[in-house]
Amino acid sequence: MKHLELDLGERSYPIFIAPGILADGGMWQKYIAGSQVCIVSNDTIAPLYLARLKQQLSGKKVCEVILPDGEAFKTLTVLEKIFDTLLQENHNRSTTLIALGGGVVGDMCGFAAACYQRGVQFIQIPTTLLSMVDSSVGGKTGVNHPLGKNMIGAFHQPNCVLADLDLLKTLPDREFSAGMAEVIKYGLICDAQFFSWLEQHIGALMARDVELLSEAVYRSCVNKAAVVAEDEREGGRRAILNLGHTFGHAIETAEGYGNWLHGEAVGAGTALALALSVKLGWLSADVEARGITLLTQAGLPIAPPSNMNVDQFLLLMGRDKKVLDGQLRLILLTGLGEAVVSSEASVELITEVLLAAGVGA
Amino acid sequence: MKHLELDLGERSYPIFIAPGILADGGMWQKYIAGSQVCIVSNDTIAPLYLARLKQQLSGKKVCEVILPDGEAFKTLTVLEKIFDTLLQENHNRSTTLIALGGGVVGDMCGFAAACYQRGVQFIQIPTTLLSMVDSSVGGKTGVNHPLGKNMIGAFHQPNCVLADLDLLKTLPDREFSAGMAEVIKYGLICDAQFFSWLEQHIGALMARDVELLSEAVYRSCVNKAAVVAEDEREGGRRAILNLGHTFGHAIETAEGYGNWLHGEAVGAGTALALALSVKLGWLSADVEARGITLLTQAGLPIAPPSNMNVDQFLLLMGRDKKVLDGQLRLILLTGLGEAVVSSEASVELITEVLLAAGVGA
Repeated sequence: MKHLELDLGERSYPIFIAPGILADGGMWQKYIAGSQVCIVSNDTIAPLYLARLKQQLSGKKVCEVILPDGEAFKTLTVLEKIFDTLLQENHNRSTTLIALGGGVVGDMCGFAAACYQRGVQFIQIPTTLLSMVDSSVGGKTGVNHPLGKNMIGAFHQPNCVLADLDLLKTLPDREFSAGMAEVIKYGLICDAQFFSWLEQHIGALMARDVELLSEAVYRSCVNKAAVVAEDEREGGRRAILNLGHTFGHAIETAEGYGNWLHGEAVGAGTALALALSVKLGWLSADVEARGITLLTQAGLPIAPPSNMNVDQFLLLMGRDKKVLDGQLRLILLTGLGEAVVSSEASVELITEVLLAAGVGA
Repeated sequence: MKHLELDLGERSYPIFIAPGILADGGMWQKYIAGSQVCIVSNDTIAPLYLARLKQQLSGKKVCEVILPDGEAFKTLTVLEKIFDTLLQENHNRSTTLIALGGGVVGDMCGFAAACYQRGVQFIQIPTTLLSMVDSSVGGKTGVNHPLGKNMIGAFHQPNCVLADLDLLKTLPDREFSAGMAEVIKYGLICDAQFFSWLEQHIGALMARDVELLSEAVYRSCVNKAAVVAEDEREGGRRAILNLGHTFGHAIETAEGYGNWLHGEAVGAGTALALALSVKLGWLSADVEARGITLLTQAGLPIAPPSNMNVDQFLLLMGRDKKVLDGQLRLILLTGLGEAVVSSEASVELITEVLLAAGVGA
């Protein structure tokens, strides 16, 4: 079993990475605060893994909330179902919520935990590659608003994260690829060695070799944990984790949540960020090409949707949280494994890059 | 001008208490973070004071959200209106929200600030006595759920609190009395000297003498600040601020939010807590009588509504946040100015006290 610690002072917590860990309740039961547990899952994951999880919770008072699957349901209205159940079942401040699902379930369960009675404890059991390497780590929780993704939320750290690689066996190919977008991101923004390792093993990773996947998830989490420990509430450096995300959020919003998966939008957004970095003269065309190749090998789109136009892109990017007093701040690369947060890319330059990528005028 | 500091490390903030402070923007403008401001108020207060506030904000990009007035609208659904406006107006992470209103507005505005883009800054301008002495101080924010009051929320501290005593001139008598319930509470739970001072000045206070009111608000805030500084997230001692509140919440829930004002329910709840403390042999009948007299002089109800019965009371009290793993914890007095959090009152004893107060069997 691999194990790392996210170091956040009194909010520190462990991340455990191993096949079969879900069924090893003896190891992780100590992270449940009291006698009450509420499992939050969705209607795709619950039939597969809910029973296995509940077997580990004998002796606890367990209830469950099964949400409809998909980013389209990551709303305040659906969130309220979790509060309904918690109150109907008389859950008190010492209850523990468990997120069993992908990023949407984790974000919603975490946000419910942040808000229920002004904060209760929770555990993340991510069931997708994307949530194992990204959304379950770092305490960002929340829901979408029709006018912007993740616009309503909280920073709320879990008690622990359990990444059970066996759960990836049932993950659809498209979602697996979407997760790889975030894995590749860590290489690009802060770990050149990891990027080379990914280039070397991309074939076996895409074939879901459990040993290699375990290593990829571990190195992704180590990178994320280091960035988050430095800047928990995204005052500065943490923003580099959003490489490709400002472009990506615009794509997701324009296409409707769920039509493009988050990781797919990040893939195309990363390609745009690479192109923009080259355009600024900060990055070599060679690194851009290696990035594009790896994204392609991971089965990801590298161009934005052709039905979007430049104005729509710029408008939706302007709504992104990385905007500070009207200044659009983007994550760009100055080398392989070296990212910066910058306002230097002009609207003209961004427009050029978008047009070159096939976006309508 | 009176001024005190709520000491919470890096989340510390000042509370300013003075007549006319709303119009003294030069003094408090430095507490606005960036160039964007969103004022949250309600349709009773906005016609009275919104223009006066906006005059102080020239040079800022100001928008406003006017909520319907009343506890019945303290819901997630109404909260969403604040997010709608913030996003429509492109407010970013450096925006500052300003709560201009009573407890409902302050709780909702504060919760919106806690959640918008995972947390932005806000300022409290309480317009009721209750919110000046209680809800605007200490960082508790949130909304109600049909099954319980303040069940969804966050701890989120404001940048500053501006208590303008002139605003109390338009406060209806019933709401003024409701605020006095919390003022009297501080005397009962932790400040016997203040309690005696209140007994001495209750006539002039009810006539809204500004000098005396200023002192009453100041001493209330000093008491609250001391308790909150010791226990920001209500792990222990902060719970004493809830004297009368577990009974009170049951009343509010049973009668429908807004039919009994929060302070009125707390008044009746405090009378029940005093009676229970005497029943346990912890408090003298003399102190109970002094408490009842002061509550009565403040125009507060001292008996619960006659249409409630014991089972309903106990059920609704069981949903209160002070319940820990099934144990009902109540705030009780062991003397004037001395409160404890206790699970020692049995259901039988609570039932006796409720029956004696006229609640149905």
